[in-house]
Amino acid sequence: MIKIAIVGYGNLGRACEKIAVGSKDFEIAGIFTRRNPAELVSPYGTAFFRQDEIFGFDGVIDVAVICTGSANDVTELGVKLARSFNTVDSFDTHARMSTYYADMSRAASNGGHLCFIGIGWDPGLFSVMRALFAGVLPSGAPYTFWGRGVSQGHSEAIRRIDGVIDAKQYTVPKAETLELVRSGGGEKLCDRDKHSRECYVAVEDGADKSLIESKIKTMPNYFEPYDTAVHFVGLEELRKNHSEMPHAGIVLSSGEVNGKMQRVEFSLKLDSNPDFTASVLMAYARANAYLAAKGETGARTALDIPVSALFAGDDVIKRFV
Amino acid sequence: MIKIAIVGYGNLGRACEKIAVGSKDFEIAGIFTRRNPAELVSPYGTAFFRQDEIFGFDGVIDVAVICTGSANDVTELGVKLARSFNTVDSFDTHARMSTYYADMSRAASNGGHLCFIGIGWDPGLFSVMRALFAGVLPSGAPYTFWGRGVSQGHSEAIRRIDGVIDAKQYTVPKAETLELVRSGGGEKLCDRDKHSRECYVAVEDGADKSLIESKIKTMPNYFEPYDTAVHFVGLEELRKNHSEMPHAGIVLSSGEVNGKMQRVEFSLKLDSNPDFTASVLMAYARANAYLAAKGETGARTALDIPVSALFAGDDVIKRFV
Repeated sequence: MIKIAIVGYGNLGRACEKIAVGSKDFEIAGIFTRRNPAELVSPYGTAFFRQDEIFGFDGVIDVAVICTGSANDVTELGVKLARSFNTVDSFDTHARMSTYYADMSRAASNGGHLCFIGIGWDPGLFSVMRALFAGVLPSGAPYTFWGRGVSQGHSEAIRRIDGVIDAKQYTVPKAETLELVRSGGGEKLCDRDKHSRECYVAVEDGADKSLIESKIKTMPNYFEPYDTAVHFVGLEELRKNHSEMPHAGIVLSSGEVNGKMQRVEFSLKLDSNPDFTASVLMAYARANAYLAAKGETGARTALDIPVSALFAGDDVIKRFV
Repeated sequence: MIKIAIVGYGNLGRACEKIAVGSKDFEIAGIFTRRNPAELVSPYGTAFFRQDEIFGFDGVIDVAVICTGSANDVTELGVKLARSFNTVDSFDTHARMSTYYADMSRAASNGGHLCFIGIGWDPGLFSVMRALFAGVLPSGAPYTFWGRGVSQGHSEAIRRIDGVIDAKQYTVPKAETLELVRSGGGEKLCDRDKHSRECYVAVEDGADKSLIESKIKTMPNYFEPYDTAVHFVGLEELRKNHSEMPHAGIVLSSGEVNGKMQRVEFSLKLDSNPDFTASVLMAYARANAYLAAKGETGARTALDIPVSALFAGDDVIKRFV
């Protein structure tokens, strides 16, 4: 049995708990949270602890699965935990990944632990595909498209606008651009060419809708660089039709080898983004326990982890090769 | 510079030579062939040697890239070469992979070399996808579809029939079955459900076409388990319209995580099967040289090789994660 700690109890933490409970090889030592443990109840009777109580479990936990929400939490907590535990996290701020990798590398190596960072589907599976595609098709450039699916960050950005009660934002890949890239084009694509944004927004009675729409569409980085559609809906309709967290995405590359065109493509279509991300995290938690037991230490991204490690020494040749 | 030997000079060997010549980091020590080296000419002026002359290059060659045609050649030669060289091969008989792995493991470990086996797209990239998909989506079963594309083995099987001058066989995935699998079905599929076979056959004057058609369609293993269409064409038409070696394929899996459906899919579409296979071989030859220089020894399938090794220590986090 692999003894795990789940750190954080939002969507991702709850999904990891459910997967662990349904798996034959995971045992949950506890869920560690910044909320008051006495006020939390698990449907599976899992024990809750305050976040810093985890350090009393030194030597007991095989892998700490970091499921805290915001990027800042992950980096600070990751480095702290890496000194005492093997960890797996889904840190997802691509621009800060190199710095975080360096910090985690140092902490994990000093503590003699093995820490997997940026595990999920992007970063994670998509990172593996981008690298694999660039490796086997060096003349092509891997492209990534996201959606159609809910972006939490963009939804929250809308919710922060005065007069907005709730909102959901869908990122939508542009079909015509996808086709262009599939046929080997796409050298000079900008953000607007690749994706559009669809917003469903519930506002307070008497709110200035045209002002809110304009605030959304002109928001720098989030919406300004894109074609954005804003739909005002009632709160009830929003909760009824837009409460799920589906997502999807594609990594693809086209390139010539010896003058012949070759195309590779990976795609996923998820009815639940947090549940799939949790499934990836738990698969790599299994690999982490296996490789750590073999004596590996330091930080790793998904690119550094051989796929066979997901099966912890089982015969993969007969099953998959 | 990575000094390679190319062993075998068919389609695959020629494609590897062209890629190496066009790359900044490969240098070809020689092409080693069972044919008479004096009768061979390379468009790039590469030196030819008899196959067994390669053992005079012990200590000179970083990686031997095995490009001989038939499966039997690869296994025997692989083990012989593994005692003296790091190797990369595209051995593709799935049923014999475990035995070959054991043999190569022993030879490579004894000789202190690093040998990659089953490198290409299937086995190879498809093996990685099957394992990765099973790892992150344990409730799903990965399915593989091949085509539309030319199967060399099936084409050759037709050519061996009396009265046949030349033939090309296309393996075609069944679109309706693909859709079924994409939507989570497909538990009880047989060979006939997944693929059909299209044959283009040029025969001698006066040959008994209906006898030939019947011999093809009833051929055990090759054609009997499938829906097979046979088209008789003139030799000129066959050479004109069916001389290329395109191929394609899909690995996909659908499964639930915590009650929510999730789908992952990898596909490729190749204008030239041997050129793409060569590109994969050369990418892994680069990884082989890198990992061997770090002291790794033994046999590896693609599942054991982290994707970051394809970039030989370059910063992959900024580029891909």
